[in-house]
Amino acid sequence: MTDAPLSGVTILDLTHVLAGPYCTMILSDLGAKVIKVERPGAGDDTREFPPFVDGMSAYFATINHGKQSIALDLRQEDDRKVFDRLLARADIVVENYRPGVMERLGYGWEALHATYPRLIYGAVSGFGHTGPEAGKPAYDMVVQARGGVMSITGEKDREPVRVGASVGDIVAGMFLVQGLMAALIAREKTGEGQKIDVAMLDSQIAILEHAVALTSATGQIPGPSGARHPTITPFETYHAKDGLFVIAAGNDVLFRRLCEALGMDLADDPRFATNRARCDNVKVLKRLIETITLEKPKQHWIDLLQQAGIPTGAIQNVAEALKDPQLLARSMVVDVPSRSGHVFTAAGNPIKMSALPDTTTRGPVPELDGDRQAILDWLDEGRAAE
Amino acid sequence: MTDAPLSGVTILDLTHVLAGPYCTMILSDLGAKVIKVERPGAGDDTREFPPFVDGMSAYFATINHGKQSIALDLRQEDDRKVFDRLLARADIVVENYRPGVMERLGYGWEALHATYPRLIYGAVSGFGHTGPEAGKPAYDMVVQARGGVMSITGEKDREPVRVGASVGDIVAGMFLVQGLMAALIAREKTGEGQKIDVAMLDSQIAILEHAVALTSATGQIPGPSGARHPTITPFETYHAKDGLFVIAAGNDVLFRRLCEALGMDLADDPRFATNRARCDNVKVLKRLIETITLEKPKQHWIDLLQQAGIPTGAIQNVAEALKDPQLLARSMVVDVPSRSGHVFTAAGNPIKMSALPDTTTRGPVPELDGDRQAILDWLDEGRAAE
Repeated sequence: MTDAPLSGVTILDLTHVLAGPYCTMILSDLGAKVIKVERPGAGDDTREFPPFVDGMSAYFATINHGKQSIALDLRQEDDRKVFDRLLARADIVVENYRPGVMERLGYGWEALHATYPRLIYGAVSGFGHTGPEAGKPAYDMVVQARGGVMSITGEKDREPVRVGASVGDIVAGMFLVQGLMAALIAREKTGEGQKIDVAMLDSQIAILEHAVALTSATGQIPGPSGARHPTITPFETYHAKDGLFVIAAGNDVLFRRLCEALGMDLADDPRFATNRARCDNVKVLKRLIETITLEKPKQHWIDLLQQAGIPTGAIQNVAEALKDPQLLARSMVVDVPSRSGHVFTAAGNPIKMSALPDTTTRGPVPELDGDRQAILDWLDEGRAAE
Repeated sequence: MTDAPLSGVTILDLTHVLAGPYCTMILSDLGAKVIKVERPGAGDDTREFPPFVDGMSAYFATINHGKQSIALDLRQEDDRKVFDRLLARADIVVENYRPGVMERLGYGWEALHATYPRLIYGAVSGFGHTGPEAGKPAYDMVVQARGGVMSITGEKDREPVRVGASVGDIVAGMFLVQGLMAALIAREKTGEGQKIDVAMLDSQIAILEHAVALTSATGQIPGPSGARHPTITPFETYHAKDGLFVIAAGNDVLFRRLCEALGMDLADDPRFATNRARCDNVKVLKRLIETITLEKPKQHWIDLLQQAGIPTGAIQNVAEALKDPQLLARSMVVDVPSRSGHVFTAAGNPIKMSALPDTTTRGPVPELDGDRQAILDWLDEGRAAE
């Protein structure tokens, strides 16, 4: 993609598992050349994560499509020479090792910055590169738990649950994308690279918003919010005749429309006239709404409320979401070929840019070390061009 | 912040509620000048969201600090003249209206691009600007439900729950940040702005990762994962004497260390020797672990396992997270002054950049239209400089 916003940007990707690879997947979708540097023998841990098709992990495939792979042992002199040549050509190096690992290899930020002043260095780790717990290991669930997200997710009076999507990793990977692009923008002005240090734990508190506001302003500690928004009403799941669906009428105008659509004479009832009043009377309001919605199936209500301009919708499982006409129309389900010929399915790129073609196929899933020769040839071409 | 990566970037922010304001908050933290253009009289809906301190919404404060506010009615000629002058000075305009609203005001992407070819246009909406449902309204919970995230969050055999953090909005706002920065990078090369169109629904499927992989590769539809990772074991909450804590031993090496630390002779047991085997025997493994962990309080186990290098941690509520020494050491809790003198608390910037000072105070919360004169003066200065 020569017209893509990140075309011409080369990324050395030392990351594994999820936060780092998710970051470089987004950058790849935006046109960057991503060279995945993997451990000889095993490679990225997720190559071993189930499920597998033709021996290839579907998990690995959906996050690493379109990247190139070279296996290098950064403790071996010959492989270090290749890595040094890659560093000289790269704009960005990204890693998600525990803090200190890159320094022990001689490739810490200070050393790299001294040799390659334009190189941008991105790190994502559990707790970051500073602070009393900088060196400790973490995985998604550790930071979901410690960062407060689990404490507000789940049902009241029951044990907390984790967010089913790995937001501990993914949100951190997204913040690293932002930092790397900000560093590219800054480099245009200064000519210098910089280091970006994203912690998964930090990233969790960064997504708490209303919970931070509530806790700090009132001293009340929010608990799990179940299937409703804690400070907006009506904004939750409701029972129809055949199951649950969502109504989110987030302001007075929408609430009035909802009352009209359902034939409820409640818009001027002092118990429900304002959002504050509706929050105070949320339980009785839910019952009044369900008295009506239980009479007919959910699709009836979704159609009716959509006609009335009220945010509403089904609770879809993942298979249903992957067939959703709106998501398909938006190229949000893409094909990822493997070398064996199997085509995996992955989520598309949600960043729709008017000057970026929005394709529904991705580059193939790299075999471990499968692009070694192409990468070495590319290095030689660069040398010849100098 | 003249050295900040986005210093010199001016953003006209027409957004309200969460997805858009969260996006422009991140850009502000990275140094952009954000001018919030609000409806006269009411302004951003979240100015009315509880809780309030001295009449100011804490919710609004934690997302809108450091921005300037001007109230403009874009249907009034005088206000349109001011807006036109702002457009001529802006690098980016961001909006989260329903598709079509900007066109009806005469400020749609096509019209703006014709007049201001360098202007970048960012939009975040429920379902995006294309596809059969482009115009329909949505809120966070509607897309959490429809996009599949709710279906994998919660306890098995119980009703699904929403993610306590508003990831329907926040993740979309983050993808828009990425698109806007990519467009700034592209503009350096092309001289032209482009439109970025982010849908909240798209953004939900983009964070499903393992669930997409699982569903598409096997046909099995994942259900709510409770408090454990669906394909990694051990990776869940465990009962100690005084409550729950998390152990996330994501590979064979960590599992072996866990067995040693807890004094369990299980690392070579065929039921638990590989991750696949551990997933198949997850229930019995949980009971074997809890047979030990129930004997002592959670802090004992957290200390012991951290010593052994095993990812572990407490499940903190929001108040505990806001006092976490690691988060405080990382400047992740910041002060946000209001004009009344009250100091709100907000989450800090998780993007730690070596050339960006990481402060623990933010610019004040804007009063509605509170920066009108400063903004008009800034426009006049620009004219004088021409």
